[in-house]
Amino acid sequence: MINWKNFDTLNSYEELMNVAPVNLVEAMTGDNGAERVKKYSVPMAAGMAFNYGAKSVDDNILDVLAKLAKEAQLTEKYEALYNGEVINTGEKRLVLHQLTRGQLGNDVVVDGVNKREFYLNELKKITEFVNKVHNGEITNAAGEKFTTVVQIGIGGSDLGPRAIYLALENWAKVHDTLKMKAQFISNVDPDDAAAVLSNIDVAHSLFIVVSKSGTTLETLTNESFVKDALAKAGLDASKHMLAVTSETSPLAKSDDYLAAFFMDDYIGGRYSSTSGVGGVVLSLAFGNKVFADFLEGATEADITAKNEDLLQNPAMLDALIGVYERNVLGYGATAVLPYSQALSRFPAHLQQADMESNGKSVNRYGEPVNYVTGPIIYGEPGTNGQHSFYQLLHQGTDIVPLQFVGFKNSQMGSDVIIEGSTSQQKLCANVAAQIVAFACGKDDTNLNKKFEGGRPSSIIIGEQLEPKSLGALLSHFENKIMFQGFVWNLNSFDQEGVQLGKVLAKKVLAHDTDGALKVYSDLLNI
Amino acid sequence: MINWKNFDTLNSYEELMNVAPVNLVEAMTGDNGAERVKKYSVPMAAGMAFNYGAKSVDDNILDVLAKLAKEAQLTEKYEALYNGEVINTGEKRLVLHQLTRGQLGNDVVVDGVNKREFYLNELKKITEFVNKVHNGEITNAAGEKFTTVVQIGIGGSDLGPRAIYLALENWAKVHDTLKMKAQFISNVDPDDAAAVLSNIDVAHSLFIVVSKSGTTLETLTNESFVKDALAKAGLDASKHMLAVTSETSPLAKSDDYLAAFFMDDYIGGRYSSTSGVGGVVLSLAFGNKVFADFLEGATEADITAKNEDLLQNPAMLDALIGVYERNVLGYGATAVLPYSQALSRFPAHLQQADMESNGKSVNRYGEPVNYVTGPIIYGEPGTNGQHSFYQLLHQGTDIVPLQFVGFKNSQMGSDVIIEGSTSQQKLCANVAAQIVAFACGKDDTNLNKKFEGGRPSSIIIGEQLEPKSLGALLSHFENKIMFQGFVWNLNSFDQEGVQLGKVLAKKVLAHDTDGALKVYSDLLNI
Repeated sequence: MINWKNFDTLNSYEELMNVAPVNLVEAMTGDNGAERVKKYSVPMAAGMAFNYGAKSVDDNILDVLAKLAKEAQLTEKYEALYNGEVINTGEKRLVLHQLTRGQLGNDVVVDGVNKREFYLNELKKITEFVNKVHNGEITNAAGEKFTTVVQIGIGGSDLGPRAIYLALENWAKVHDTLKMKAQFISNVDPDDAAAVLSNIDVAHSLFIVVSKSGTTLETLTNESFVKDALAKAGLDASKHMLAVTSETSPLAKSDDYLAAFFMDDYIGGRYSSTSGVGGVVLSLAFGNKVFADFLEGATEADITAKNEDLLQNPAMLDALIGVYERNVLGYGATAVLPYSQALSRFPAHLQQADMESNGKSVNRYGEPVNYVTGPIIYGEPGTNGQHSFYQLLHQGTDIVPLQFVGFKNSQMGSDVIIEGSTSQQKLCANVAAQIVAFACGKDDTNLNKKFEGGRPSSIIIGEQLEPKSLGALLSHFENKIMFQGFVWNLNSFDQEGVQLGKVLAKKVLAHDTDGALKVYSDLLNI
Repeated sequence: MINWKNFDTLNSYEELMNVAPVNLVEAMTGDNGAERVKKYSVPMAAGMAFNYGAKSVDDNILDVLAKLAKEAQLTEKYEALYNGEVINTGEKRLVLHQLTRGQLGNDVVVDGVNKREFYLNELKKITEFVNKVHNGEITNAAGEKFTTVVQIGIGGSDLGPRAIYLALENWAKVHDTLKMKAQFISNVDPDDAAAVLSNIDVAHSLFIVVSKSGTTLETLTNESFVKDALAKAGLDASKHMLAVTSETSPLAKSDDYLAAFFMDDYIGGRYSSTSGVGGVVLSLAFGNKVFADFLEGATEADITAKNEDLLQNPAMLDALIGVYERNVLGYGATAVLPYSQALSRFPAHLQQADMESNGKSVNRYGEPVNYVTGPIIYGEPGTNGQHSFYQLLHQGTDIVPLQFVGFKNSQMGSDVIIEGSTSQQKLCANVAAQIVAFACGKDDTNLNKKFEGGRPSSIIIGEQLEPKSLGALLSHFENKIMFQGFVWNLNSFDQEGVQLGKVLAKKVLAHDTDGALKVYSDLLNI
């Protein structure tokens, strides 16, 4: 029997609030530090490891976090989720994104439809369609192969697929599996679509309109923008456009599309990269095998997240350490710092996934909570960030917990030896150095050159960023966010906070405004 | 006589701490709200305006902030800076980036060199060189024109120039002044350079190595990477490479470069976009006229920042409202939200400019301060952000002040009318709607759909994002950061916090490690 209780009503909440803190500088210095880093590591899916040696925890705190995990019934709640309970209570929806990639849990049947079969069938449709595009069965009107695919979508229909595409583009090049170049149009700013269109050959491009509801303002507007461009080029838009939507949406049965692929209300936008939302564009770009491997990595991580032993469950551990940092230590933000240029947009995806899921002030019953919830998430790849905002991270007045990601090997394998080391070695040396610099600091009589240390970080280490490890990485963070939502007793799967702006924007466009809104509208010449 | 005093020793500090707060929901509702938005607006350079109607201030708070401005001697300190005093006290350096773009203040002579003339002369050298490249006097070995320019630099040598290039690329296309495509290599991750090189035609590319010291690890490594590629293509690297550096650097007199352009220690990396660091790549990409217009906009904003009347000085006003939000209201972050896809990387530039300047815990004399300093800065373009992290901004447990930017007109002029409005109108309607939604909120008996409001924002409104307004925007934020540094009594122009990581990374590469650092090095296979 699952109890949905507020975090601060749990016995372990009190215990956690009063736990003795760790002196991270001491803990990480000398032989003890070395032992700690060896010990505080847990295997992740796809051969990766989550190392939390430099986090402000010790065995005692981890014991309390394990109690919290049990008392908050994290494993049971996760089971309930993938077995099809109505976890998105506000919208009365199941939460089934794990089903799009794996075989977790029971069959889930809704209105007579077996959802596992439904998602598998959509994946099969995608696979077949992609094969036909790649082998030239489906071509443009001139019988020529398509070379470019353009995703038209915003939010979850953009950030995840775009981050994944960029993460694998160069890997795919060297593995000779970059089948089509992908581009993305998201912003309602007309310059976004215009710029993309000016960079591609529309006659050889497929466009995917991605909107679950089929009513997203930005996406429909950009679809029209693209259709205009196709018409001006003398092309039949319906031979160039695909839809990814729900079966009940206005896009679903339209003749405007070469093909339509379906998801449903049980796949939240920010969790949709493993559904057709990511599947069509990524399979067209990289081929079906790459997307299948990506799903396999995600599945592995989903399975790892089932482990009831906190110390063997990296997503749950990452989540609970984050809760300790947020609610006990009082840190308001987390920086995501991948030491991999290919992950340049992965922090932007996590920013949505996390902040839209857990940036909330009421619990799943709509009652105000008396504790802070989701932190700010931001980040840039290292080493670039080192030359940018790390100054504040090292010496600023607020402490920001850090989430590093690093890989032993580069993607493209092209490298150069300078001063006895490769670029990849320099990259890895920098992330190792940063972890220790943040944790241990350095004393100096000149306080301007002094580093307090005590700034906690974790690192996920993998062999190489490739489809499987990327899938595991995506799923790790999705599950981390889910577990944090469970602890905070939030509904992590709705987003009511985005509604008011939409309503007011419509009023502005209808010139139905007064007061301050009218003045701003006038100032902006609307 | 200038007094450098800690913020909390000023009389106006106490007064500010005890000032009556504004109820922003009330203040922004109804006719009063409309009046407020009309009144709380100040002209900026290049025809823009800074509107702070939705900030949590009133006439009373603004009075106290004006007292603070006087007592902290903000205008005098700015004058001292551009007249050549040693404002970067830690490194005993002048701070002269304003001189690279304008004629502010006295002549500054250092070691017999008139710095104004020095910077102007470098600009002239750049202009002449760029003309020769564009008119075909300088070509590759085969006598063919260069078509691509690649900047190799990191931090300030990357973020600002890259953000500016992206901001003007599409504008330049439609104004027929995109002379060369620009690319950027920054990360020591070998995949960064490999990916850029796989996308360009090296035989028709110029590469600019940008490092003030001439010793930046990432940049020198990437230079070697590129030279390898040029050698493999049978090309003479010295005919393809330029340097932007200081006269005393190892790069300055080398035969390895087609030309070298100079800056000096008085131009901080994050303030160097208006020097040769931005000048060479931007002038090659867009032509000299565009860069000259960009500098003109920056100069105008520098002049506006001289105004002693707080209410007529947008940079100072923006700075002081930010101080009030940070030190009195206790907000830890600021989100930068440009409603312009072209400004996609401008928040990343501001992230460095701000966080590296003011993310510090000691004052300019190296004494600890007892108040919080620089906030976290992050952001993404709207409307994309609306579908990402705005959920937390609207309904999260922490308040985040917002810095909007919007333009009445798009850059490319290509648009489409859907449901009676253009995309540009939709874009502007959204930013207007968001400001009011954040400020006023909306009540609802379902607390999940309730918006507390009271979330402060400002907006900078311009006609169009073009070279001059972009220059003004850049300079506005530089001056805002400078004024905040003055209030907090920081040295905003050093970055000692980046040193420790460099030292430890060298140890890792030399295999001179023990303890935790050795374990991390082993885990990462270094």
